[in-house]
Amino acid sequence: MHLDKGQYKSKDDLQDHVKVAQGNKKADCVIKNTKFLDVFAGRFVQGDIAIYKGVIVGTGHGYTADLEVDADGSFAVPGFIDAHVHIESSNMTPYQYQRAVMPLGTTTIVWDPHEIANVKGIEGIQWALISTDNLLMDSFIMLPSCVPSTSPCLGLETSGAELSSHDLAMFRERERVLGLGEMMNFPGVLFHDEEVLNKLTTFQKFKCDGHCPGLKDKDLNAYAASGISTDHESTTADEAREKLSKGIYSLIREGSCAKDADKLLPLLNSYTSAVLALCSDDRDIVDILHEGHINYVIDKALKAGHKPEDVFRIASFTPAKMYGLNDRGAIAPGYIADLCLIKPKSGNGFQCGMDIVDVFKCGQRICDNVFVEPKSKYSFAGKNINIPEIHLIDLQLDAKNPQAKTQMVNVIGMKPDQLLTDRLVAELPVLSGEVAVDIANDILKVAVFERHKGTGNKAIGFVSGFELKQGAIASSVNHDCHNVIAVGASDEALLEAIRLLIDMDGGIVVVDGDGDSVSLPLPIGGLMSNATPDEIYAKRIELKQMAKKIGCNLNDPFLQLAFLALPVIPSVKITDIGLVDVEKLKVIDVVRGE
Amino acid sequence: MHLDKGQYKSKDDLQDHVKVAQGNKKADCVIKNTKFLDVFAGRFVQGDIAIYKGVIVGTGHGYTADLEVDADGSFAVPGFIDAHVHIESSNMTPYQYQRAVMPLGTTTIVWDPHEIANVKGIEGIQWALISTDNLLMDSFIMLPSCVPSTSPCLGLETSGAELSSHDLAMFRERERVLGLGEMMNFPGVLFHDEEVLNKLTTFQKFKCDGHCPGLKDKDLNAYAASGISTDHESTTADEAREKLSKGIYSLIREGSCAKDADKLLPLLNSYTSAVLALCSDDRDIVDILHEGHINYVIDKALKAGHKPEDVFRIASFTPAKMYGLNDRGAIAPGYIADLCLIKPKSGNGFQCGMDIVDVFKCGQRICDNVFVEPKSKYSFAGKNINIPEIHLIDLQLDAKNPQAKTQMVNVIGMKPDQLLTDRLVAELPVLSGEVAVDIANDILKVAVFERHKGTGNKAIGFVSGFELKQGAIASSVNHDCHNVIAVGASDEALLEAIRLLIDMDGGIVVVDGDGDSVSLPLPIGGLMSNATPDEIYAKRIELKQMAKKIGCNLNDPFLQLAFLALPVIPSVKITDIGLVDVEKLKVIDVVRGE
Repeated sequence: MHLDKGQYKSKDDLQDHVKVAQGNKKADCVIKNTKFLDVFAGRFVQGDIAIYKGVIVGTGHGYTADLEVDADGSFAVPGFIDAHVHIESSNMTPYQYQRAVMPLGTTTIVWDPHEIANVKGIEGIQWALISTDNLLMDSFIMLPSCVPSTSPCLGLETSGAELSSHDLAMFRERERVLGLGEMMNFPGVLFHDEEVLNKLTTFQKFKCDGHCPGLKDKDLNAYAASGISTDHESTTADEAREKLSKGIYSLIREGSCAKDADKLLPLLNSYTSAVLALCSDDRDIVDILHEGHINYVIDKALKAGHKPEDVFRIASFTPAKMYGLNDRGAIAPGYIADLCLIKPKSGNGFQCGMDIVDVFKCGQRICDNVFVEPKSKYSFAGKNINIPEIHLIDLQLDAKNPQAKTQMVNVIGMKPDQLLTDRLVAELPVLSGEVAVDIANDILKVAVFERHKGTGNKAIGFVSGFELKQGAIASSVNHDCHNVIAVGASDEALLEAIRLLIDMDGGIVVVDGDGDSVSLPLPIGGLMSNATPDEIYAKRIELKQMAKKIGCNLNDPFLQLAFLALPVIPSVKITDIGLVDVEKLKVIDVVRGE
Repeated sequence: MHLDKGQYKSKDDLQDHVKVAQGNKKADCVIKNTKFLDVFAGRFVQGDIAIYKGVIVGTGHGYTADLEVDADGSFAVPGFIDAHVHIESSNMTPYQYQRAVMPLGTTTIVWDPHEIANVKGIEGIQWALISTDNLLMDSFIMLPSCVPSTSPCLGLETSGAELSSHDLAMFRERERVLGLGEMMNFPGVLFHDEEVLNKLTTFQKFKCDGHCPGLKDKDLNAYAASGISTDHESTTADEAREKLSKGIYSLIREGSCAKDADKLLPLLNSYTSAVLALCSDDRDIVDILHEGHINYVIDKALKAGHKPEDVFRIASFTPAKMYGLNDRGAIAPGYIADLCLIKPKSGNGFQCGMDIVDVFKCGQRICDNVFVEPKSKYSFAGKNINIPEIHLIDLQLDAKNPQAKTQMVNVIGMKPDQLLTDRLVAELPVLSGEVAVDIANDILKVAVFERHKGTGNKAIGFVSGFELKQGAIASSVNHDCHNVIAVGASDEALLEAIRLLIDMDGGIVVVDGDGDSVSLPLPIGGLMSNATPDEIYAKRIELKQMAKKIGCNLNDPFLQLAFLALPVIPSVKITDIGLVDVEKLKVIDVVRGE
């Protein structure tokens, strides 16, 4: 990828750009009455912005165009860049995703299609490339480095795919591919895992994103020396500062689950504005439409008293440079005309935050009718949900002693708004030889069904934290393998929810156990819908209301469910293989021996 | 050019780098007892620096190596980068050049071999690439965009070569080639010169250096929109600030002739430390050995009160990023081990400047026996000086009226330490029908002989400012066409100097007119010598002493002579075609009609 400023198609086109810049030919559009941010010297400059064929050709005064936009004294800043995102976590397709985030100022994203790749493998990456081709929003791709998330030889889970260094190498030279996505398998680096080293070597001359929560000292040196140059997992300023000093740029993340901005923004100053960036990682549609996207973190930073010139630099110029996108991130001649017109929320300064007045992508003003639905839709062959017919008996768990009245079991102790779980032990009633749930004490049944390969793998366990009094929730969004997971207050409700999910070939379902249900079908890999942002948003709200109706008061029950099967986050999780002790990386029994 | 951090040769080598970083394998070298600059967060950090195979693999504590260097409490900063240089102006070959500048901390240069290309064309670029291959110092190449400096169709001068966009395209993909060198022909951009636009288009996706003294407003927009991203010609902070706001990075130059640091350093702060760099452009050996190289500007900046973390960033990290050299410019794992150990000149802070204690290139300590002379020397075919035999008569200038006692002539008015000249008029004595010099009033004869193509072109004129009382100076270093130029107090001395220069096939000569002479042969293109820095330096000093002996008190008579023939700097110059009025871009008569 060679991207640099100076955007023209040919020598004649260059001549036209020069003529327009000189004022000897009309521009396509001039934005007047604005102060634009100079991200080079860190100041706002009064001056018009002349745009020709999607590119800024001049700043200053005296330009004319057929379209002259009066910015009404608002400020112009470069379009925002999301430096690390998994679009899939929004349940939207890339086409719909841009409709949600572009009005919020995001004009470029760096997408690691890690989720769809876990489900569909090579075809998933192919789809990611096709589905972002010719969008209005620019989407660059980091190739998923860790599919599946744990080494298959551990046998802890069944993923939809495995991607080798050879698989990834096929995509290395594709347009818009920047490099290797987050190397979550940092132990693999430290223990010299053959395939991990192969992947890093394959992408040596490309960008390599990192993912190394808590890594420090010599281990961090080793990780940095292997060529990794970003990380978005720091949760304290000290952690991020140590990583920075090792040359690992910090991407400040504000996702739906992981929210690091408040902790990391104190790192920002004029000096570090050259080495920090912003990202959303996993951010769901409710948060995007309620709070915002990159603009939300910007707002936080402004309200925290950071200088606008620092804040807007890390939202545009700096991530552009980090990823070699030298054609964007500044309001200056030769740069792509991606920009936002903004106003202070109140007063003259930005200390109360900002409002977005207008967004321009390649000089085009963003409004709803500007998005053109892609003509050819690429769809995956085969079903998303490949689970043999299931019955009540498949959800039952035998007690050790069928005659006993109770049974001791290992339980996943979920905590609100956290991905970490506790390992609990509970004594549950035994009915007709089967271990039963204990609704009064919030010990519910959780089930995982392998859905990719038709293995029929399943695991039944117990979880506390959902507080369902009746009904069940089922989902095919379930990091990183995205098998089907369900939690329920009764086997009947569980069965109903899972059957509904199978019928609609993937999605999210809540059943109340009284015959009522809400469902969001996710026909694309069981992860995404073709519906509009508003439609998906409305459905997510309905789902949440139904979950609340059956007793669940979690902030985001579906997101918490979605991380119950990820066996790389301590301390106990459940996959299609069984209950996993994450520290020991081994499967343990649900039903205890004592 | 894909350069990124993470320097290893293979997967096995990566594994070794990781092991050393982890402390599980010995490093090659550990620098202990130092505080190193963290160019990311802008602070000095106490910690050792572990180096393996030329690369920094770890910072911190607890590393061991066979070679442990006690830095004795000195500070470590990344090796310096000269962001724009013409090595030829030092009269040294690249091999010798590195011996002069590396002990001063310069570990990487970006070389525009503009001078040798003007003399030797394609072969000159070839030579530049070969002569920098396998040097200890890393030399990246920007391809000369303006050979010759004026359009051949103007017919103002005869150069050794012309380089078309096709010629340059041949070198575009060569290793170490970064892009297109300084586009001095900015009028060519503004007037849409076909070949200028061709060159820019050819290098659209590469780096394009600029050169646009005084350009502003819409013309500057046009220049920036054409893809040019640096400039080193600003002489005021305001000029540089306007260019910055157009996305044209400022390279702060401190050459031998053009010294801009004092004027431009006020631009430097923590924010702009991400968009400024340092360069030497044309810096002669006397200044390099007397004052220093990039370290000299650093010292100036420190003494001016700038923060060390800002100053050292623009000397390393920032130019590295500007030119896509992502493998260097920081002291962090995965970065090339280019670094300087420095100490404050006095006290604890750097406000009195710094002393260089030690320099490491790829982990190798720089000392004189570390340089290995290249085995195969590439030499140019043919002679450097292709001038038909000359005689006294070739130096004579007929008066309009052979009977007159005096003759009015146009004279080049040279000014000490400036490249700009005045256009003067003088009345000179006529002897035997020839216009004679006027030593008492410092009106001397200047002669230019075309030397590349054997055309026999020559021009005779008059110049004031050298103050020679006897003897003559001749040189084949003479921007940009590098024809032979000579200035003398008598025709006999001129003839002697030029004949000596022809005999040694290029170089610099001073004759005293009493039979004594000093000469520096420059066998490589008439521009460079294979001699050592010390030898060339000694000879330059001798030349200057001889020039002083014959009356010249200029700070650098040879540099001033070298710019007398450059017809792009106002207001009057002399080329092999004749006396040139630079504003009108036309040849004018020396002998006036009145």
